[in-house]
Amino acid sequence: MRKPTGADPRKRKGLIIVHTGEGKGKSTAAFGLALRAAGNRMNVFIMQFMKGPWKAGERKALESLAPYVEIVPMGDGFTWDTENIEQDKATARKAFDLVKEKLNSGKFEMVIFEEINYVLDYKFLPEDEVLETIRNKPKMTHVVCTGRNASKKLIEMADLVTEMKMIKHPFAEQRIPAQKGIEF
Amino acid sequence: MRKPTGADPRKRKGLIIVHTGEGKGKSTAAFGLALRAAGNRMNVFIMQFMKGPWKAGERKALESLAPYVEIVPMGDGFTWDTENIEQDKATARKAFDLVKEKLNSGKFEMVIFEEINYVLDYKFLPEDEVLETIRNKPKMTHVVCTGRNASKKLIEMADLVTEMKMIKHPFAEQRIPAQKGIEF
Repeated sequence: MRKPTGADPRKRKGLIIVHTGEGKGKSTAAFGLALRAAGNRMNVFIMQFMKGPWKAGERKALESLAPYVEIVPMGDGFTWDTENIEQDKATARKAFDLVKEKLNSGKFEMVIFEEINYVLDYKFLPEDEVLETIRNKPKMTHVVCTGRNASKKLIEMADLVTEMKMIKHPFAEQRIPAQKGIEF
Repeated sequence: MRKPTGADPRKRKGLIIVHTGEGKGKSTAAFGLALRAAGNRMNVFIMQFMKGPWKAGERKALESLAPYVEIVPMGDGFTWDTENIEQDKATARKAFDLVKEKLNSGKFEMVIFEEINYVLDYKFLPEDEVLETIRNKPKMTHVVCTGRNASKKLIEMADLVTEMKMIKHPFAEQRIPAQKGIEF
């Protein structure tokens, strides 16, 4: 007899995971998942939808987890420039096409769409297309989507959603600048 | 003239960071911070106040970040056993003495007290002593404390507090078992 509240091993599947909210730790926890997965010899692909020179430290760290972790930042030298939305859309499209290909290759047990929520929020990609791609992922692959303002549809579709809620932030309250190892 | 809302570089200091709440990602985000710090060639010490065989994957991953990351699990074979509180207290004391020594050595730019909130919540260590140790840390060292039910005093003392809030959890809603790479 199976307890009605227990876990059912037949239900094992790749999860759709969302880290959202205004607080810290959304990408950081996703990178922690990549680290844990690499420790279990699982292959992880990370698409960084927001790229910046301040990301150098974390990218180097993730690269040290090769061959298990592969990380690709969106087009070099790119910064979001909402004054040229067509260019933003083209860059987002290129990044999305690559992560979609990696997801569907079946080579990765975990695929991280870092800051995809940002991209969707700004309508740089059609939401329905992105969600459809994630919904049709290989069954056992875990997908992690991060960023503020996760859409209702994404939350509805996800298996595991965590809101990082800011209780206290040193920049806001004490005017402490961003620090190496913490924010970049 | 300095803008009143801007960051002040003179205020740079090691932060006291707390990850708490019922949701996922508290330890995972702490490990993400360790990863990022290692990428910046900073030295990190991690004391795992809760140890279990399921932690093997993440420990192996963190060990791969040597020499930058050093991780010590509490006494081998130990499991929390509230039926023998004196033994629990002795184990917690040993772990705390070691992490305190590492913290005060000044050799680490980041020290993670993983699940310390659990230990304090169960009163395995005197809270005032632990908080006093953290308050007197080397100025530039970041301290990260994780676990549910962070105490009011710790939150008050901290610079950066994030609550991981569970919005949706697959175990509760779909009876999906814990999965490799996600929970262990």
